[in-house]
Amino acid sequence: MRVQDHAKDLPSKWYNIAPDMGPAAPTMVSPSGYPLGPHDLRPLASWEIAKQELEREQREIEIPDDLRQHYADWRPTPLFRAEGFERHLDTPARIFYKYEGGSPSGGHEFNTALAQAYYASKEGVKRIVTATGLGEWGAAMAIACNRFGIDCKVYMARSCYEGGGFGRRMIEVLGAEVVPSPSEGTAAGRKLRDQNADSQGSLTMAISEAFTDAMGDDDAKFAWGTVMNHVLLHQSVIGLEAKRQLRRAKAKAEIVIGAAGGGCAFGGLVFPFLQGRGSKPRVIAVEPVAAPCLTKGRLAYDFVDAEGLTPMLKMYTLGRGFVPPGGQAGGIRFHGLSPLVSALYRDKRIEARTYAQHEAFQAAIDFARCEGYIPSPESAYAIKAVVDEANACRERGEGKDILFVLNASGNLELDTYAEFVNGNLEDETFPEAMVDAALDQLPDVQVQPGSA
Amino acid sequence: MRVQDHAKDLPSKWYNIAPDMGPAAPTMVSPSGYPLGPHDLRPLASWEIAKQELEREQREIEIPDDLRQHYADWRPTPLFRAEGFERHLDTPARIFYKYEGGSPSGGHEFNTALAQAYYASKEGVKRIVTATGLGEWGAAMAIACNRFGIDCKVYMARSCYEGGGFGRRMIEVLGAEVVPSPSEGTAAGRKLRDQNADSQGSLTMAISEAFTDAMGDDDAKFAWGTVMNHVLLHQSVIGLEAKRQLRRAKAKAEIVIGAAGGGCAFGGLVFPFLQGRGSKPRVIAVEPVAAPCLTKGRLAYDFVDAEGLTPMLKMYTLGRGFVPPGGQAGGIRFHGLSPLVSALYRDKRIEARTYAQHEAFQAAIDFARCEGYIPSPESAYAIKAVVDEANACRERGEGKDILFVLNASGNLELDTYAEFVNGNLEDETFPEAMVDAALDQLPDVQVQPGSA
Repeated sequence: MRVQDHAKDLPSKWYNIAPDMGPAAPTMVSPSGYPLGPHDLRPLASWEIAKQELEREQREIEIPDDLRQHYADWRPTPLFRAEGFERHLDTPARIFYKYEGGSPSGGHEFNTALAQAYYASKEGVKRIVTATGLGEWGAAMAIACNRFGIDCKVYMARSCYEGGGFGRRMIEVLGAEVVPSPSEGTAAGRKLRDQNADSQGSLTMAISEAFTDAMGDDDAKFAWGTVMNHVLLHQSVIGLEAKRQLRRAKAKAEIVIGAAGGGCAFGGLVFPFLQGRGSKPRVIAVEPVAAPCLTKGRLAYDFVDAEGLTPMLKMYTLGRGFVPPGGQAGGIRFHGLSPLVSALYRDKRIEARTYAQHEAFQAAIDFARCEGYIPSPESAYAIKAVVDEANACRERGEGKDILFVLNASGNLELDTYAEFVNGNLEDETFPEAMVDAALDQLPDVQVQPGSA
Repeated sequence: MRVQDHAKDLPSKWYNIAPDMGPAAPTMVSPSGYPLGPHDLRPLASWEIAKQELEREQREIEIPDDLRQHYADWRPTPLFRAEGFERHLDTPARIFYKYEGGSPSGGHEFNTALAQAYYASKEGVKRIVTATGLGEWGAAMAIACNRFGIDCKVYMARSCYEGGGFGRRMIEVLGAEVVPSPSEGTAAGRKLRDQNADSQGSLTMAISEAFTDAMGDDDAKFAWGTVMNHVLLHQSVIGLEAKRQLRRAKAKAEIVIGAAGGGCAFGGLVFPFLQGRGSKPRVIAVEPVAAPCLTKGRLAYDFVDAEGLTPMLKMYTLGRGFVPPGGQAGGIRFHGLSPLVSALYRDKRIEARTYAQHEAFQAAIDFARCEGYIPSPESAYAIKAVVDEANACRERGEGKDILFVLNASGNLELDTYAEFVNGNLEDETFPEAMVDAALDQLPDVQVQPGSA
């Protein structure tokens, strides 16, 4: 059942957690270890986005009125109490979920795509270049660019481009240009193809190409789909709304759960619950066994892209040489994770755990049969954690309130679910040898004074 | 931009147009021409649904409180003003659309699926059997049955079942049984296979099978996805909400447009605007060139299914022997159309027109690039009519208010859009010879006294 909401639940300000982290807030550095300022980011992002990325003082950042009007097209998103799923689990826990699948693009990605396109249009940017795995992010960016009259080009991991998935079709229908990556069109792409002519690509490689493309055009900006501080800032609308909606339902989130790929839906939900004094909920980040950044990665400075072109971020990483096995190039299998989320994990303010795809999908299907919404594969991992926590509540006889984010509809990935239902989906395992090799190649960064 | 709405916009009563039609309201008869009463419909529908189907006195029918709570999970659905599309068309008209794509199943079908499953559960029905073309209706019924603990079996046109479309996958993931039709499992299916061993099926044939299946099981009911009065009754929530939302936007629907396959999304939007005294909007029903019931069919008593097992309805029909060309078995290409809509067209209270698929898809893609939502192929036809009316407004310098229903998300049919974008989709034409042959075989019904 849906928790009642009001238009005013849509916040007028984003929440920036960095000021509340104090010296624990992560810094972005150049390969030589110097901290970066907004001017260093100019070629990569609009001025306002660069400032938001590095903002360490203002904890509340105004959402411009006209942008907020766009948000109001589908926000506040509904908060549901999963009563059917509670009955199915026979748990005394109350389970709430924030449903982001109703956005124009079908997922949480549109929260930041819209903001990035908005600021770009204000600053006269003509073209946005970005990178996508399965296509949800690319589609969100295509819709946002259309709204503000900006051209959009999307580099897509070749395995996903050629796989006949729905992401590519959606981007094409929306009129953006989609390029299979690695391609011959950029220096980074040619280098990657020289190394491996049959490369099926990855999101990490596609970022290298999109980055090169945007750097070579004064009228273009690169757009970041996850990991970066400003992306998590924009996603904070999720948690800010959920807090207000839970208050109306007279509930208190005691356990807050999200799947963490790049960490943006997770951070968007969770950060507002870590704000202020008072008692805090238990917070659980869930990762796939196949790409366990927090639980098996290393906290180190690393690049976001394969070729080492981006600024360096201090994050839990599997090494940028990590390529998700089996062409599974969705954002949930990225090599690195938001520096803000990473710092919270280092400081033991959040927990992390992994699940394998089969158990996650089974939980997601049980959920879909109770609640009606087919969750994105990413949120399937969160749902498996919800199941375990709800079972623990039953065993201990505790009626806790659990909140998770259902970040996107799974409708665009029904083929993967259908493979699972029909017994044709191999389960995932931890690709230990590849991670060991990728971690061995982590750059050795000598951080200069002034950096964290 | 979204027109502001309130929880109270969700109506507490459905609108039944039949009493307001008086003697023009259509009757349902047996093959021998006798009007049917609720007892005749008992094997086919729950008691409450049978009563609603035949209700000729009450124009307002209470939505039970607990069912209304389920509706509140996603209703009221948003009403948008399509400002981006207006600018693109350079029209003085204001274009509003009621967006039904945000339901759990992704379309308007869930409005009646939920009501039918609700009444079935109240009456102890154990199993619901239904028929689907591309799968949207089957998925809606599967979700509704899951909510009320009812088993669900869906007969799906074989061409759609084997085509690898997303509808089948969605139904399977939701745990309902899906059977390619015609099948060997029912007498009707075997007969159809005897006539044509390679039959690719159609929605009309699948209804014959589902009907036979439900008739043979006392614990089962057949569920109707469209055409029937009770389905249009449940869909009236669309128009009732839209009226309230338009009032808040200080707009008056002067032209109301919907695509008419079986006629349920169309009727659901339109009927409340035809209620009461006062001036009425122009109402336009849009059909595909490939299945033009109103514009090229005949008003006659006909069966809903291929084998002639259902009650007979007085409707504009292409003949139940009509099989949509090219395996295009979506509801928009059904052989018959709601008797209520048919009677309104006969009495010239509504207009009708046809468009071909290419021009409809082009309009839908232009719309998606302006507004962000990719429309269902069905509503693409409505959007082409909106374009023509908006252009006429520009030519005449008239700033009229146009309203249409975007009945479902097109995300599950992205493959068809992608074929069109890539130039691989053949345009549709009117299958004249087939319609002539099917109309020749219309049954000759001697209607007995007491029927319309």
